[in-house]
Amino acid sequence: MKKAMSSRLAYLGPPGTFGEEAALLYGRQARLIPFVSHHAIASAVQTGLADEGIMAIENSLEGSVNDTLDLLIHESGLMIKKELNLTIEHCMLAKPGTQAQEIKIIFSHPQALAQCRRFLERIFPRAQLVAALSTAAAVEQMMASPEPSAAIGSKRAAEIYGAEIMARGIQTDSLKAPNITRFVVVSREDSPPTGHDKTSLCFYIGTDHPGSLCNILEEFSKRNINLAKIESRPSKESLGKYYFLVDLEGHKQEPMVAEALEKVRPKTALFKILGSYPRYSETGSKSQAGEEKCL
Amino acid sequence: MKKAMSSRLAYLGPPGTFGEEAALLYGRQARLIPFVSHHAIASAVQTGLADEGIMAIENSLEGSVNDTLDLLIHESGLMIKKELNLTIEHCMLAKPGTQAQEIKIIFSHPQALAQCRRFLERIFPRAQLVAALSTAAAVEQMMASPEPSAAIGSKRAAEIYGAEIMARGIQTDSLKAPNITRFVVVSREDSPPTGHDKTSLCFYIGTDHPGSLCNILEEFSKRNINLAKIESRPSKESLGKYYFLVDLEGHKQEPMVAEALEKVRPKTALFKILGSYPRYSETGSKSQAGEEKCL
Repeated sequence: MKKAMSSRLAYLGPPGTFGEEAALLYGRQARLIPFVSHHAIASAVQTGLADEGIMAIENSLEGSVNDTLDLLIHESGLMIKKELNLTIEHCMLAKPGTQAQEIKIIFSHPQALAQCRRFLERIFPRAQLVAALSTAAAVEQMMASPEPSAAIGSKRAAEIYGAEIMARGIQTDSLKAPNITRFVVVSREDSPPTGHDKTSLCFYIGTDHPGSLCNILEEFSKRNINLAKIESRPSKESLGKYYFLVDLEGHKQEPMVAEALEKVRPKTALFKILGSYPRYSETGSKSQAGEEKCL
Repeated sequence: MKKAMSSRLAYLGPPGTFGEEAALLYGRQARLIPFVSHHAIASAVQTGLADEGIMAIENSLEGSVNDTLDLLIHESGLMIKKELNLTIEHCMLAKPGTQAQEIKIIFSHPQALAQCRRFLERIFPRAQLVAALSTAAAVEQMMASPEPSAAIGSKRAAEIYGAEIMARGIQTDSLKAPNITRFVVVSREDSPPTGHDKTSLCFYIGTDHPGSLCNILEEFSKRNINLAKIESRPSKESLGKYYFLVDLEGHKQEPMVAEALEKVRPKTALFKILGSYPRYSETGSKSQAGEEKCL
């Protein structure tokens, strides 16, 4: 049986990362290929080694994932075709039989350590925190460590590496602030209109007078186009020069959106549409009204 | 001899970090006290354990330092009283006598590994990258490692830990993109006007109609007040709700700035002035015209 029809989906490995969890959520039929970095995922998609790639773009507690934004800004031939949200539940994992009071070392990715800071300060104030390159790598290191230790990682990583789950949902403020990561699926093309879409763009303002950003944003507000997000990223040329990343509601093929985009383009020194794609909803059928503020 | 007059400056330790370098650049007369996190620095300043604290807030390649922004937004009694820029020069350090071709492991903080990615991919494509909690900790781990290894850290860390500098300026695009980190000095009060100041503020928009951000930014542009920066940070309540952080040119006591701020306040659901302070300049005397774009 040939399997040529199953699409190849690049994700940030190794197996057991939240990247893999998002990939499984998105493409149950896809062939999942782990890569070592978001840069590698981008190259795989650009060169045809993979059909699609999935990358974390934003976390509700920590903010944007910088290298994903930079890839979308600076690399060519990469469009956003879908977004999806994954609820992140950090677990404390240890070798089976480990007692909490004997734990001396806690391994994880620095972002996971930051997200679980309050839990760690309260329960393990004296444990040594050791950084790892991913939560999955942390679990691997913990399993190999001769010292009594724990790792912060996913439920799935516990299964893969044979670890025991000692505690779940240990991220900061888990009760009031959900820990959700937004992922984007990138490909060489974006998506056709569905009627409840989002468009991501980035631009760079070259002019040097007050009000130039406002002058651009007005093109959207006067056409009643909601901005779901605006964010600045350093241009990497010098401190104090920024790219703007904007998510707006609507598809680039909708007449009002198309008109606004055509008005904005000449006001910028650099302008790039990153893709139009369906707005994420849990049910997959409708946008979640009121989930995002308008700007 | 009593030394009660020397001010106590909290910084992100251990000695050998770029945080210490910034602290030395700022306060040669101050007594430097290392702390383990930006949260600890904030608590030290709030409780009087330190008079001032110094924290990285932004890097020209990597963007904002999230935990510093979150502390300024969410903690009370912490004002920005000064900013300063430090040029970051990453070095490759090893035990004296180590040969480049025998290096198997490279230790550093994930952000430093990211900043030096191209150098590492070209020269050490097969080396294992190991994450550390700071560049100084990376140098310490490297010196203790039985395997032939290197660490990415500062020139000063080489001195402190007795390492040899194998290469300098190894950050990405070092020729065209300077790697500069902006630090802020926080205290319980901000600074009096000097005539060339900056004001940082944060606000949260509660309303739900297109154009509300533009409506706020207009209060600045119509008074000819330049925005040096605008940035969004997740509110931590749910994905899609953001705080805005704005840096504008001028002191909060200048009449036009004071007027604009009073107009903006009622348009927001939350409004906080993070401080007015002198704009950074290399010479310490004048602002660097043209260094920052206006928005």
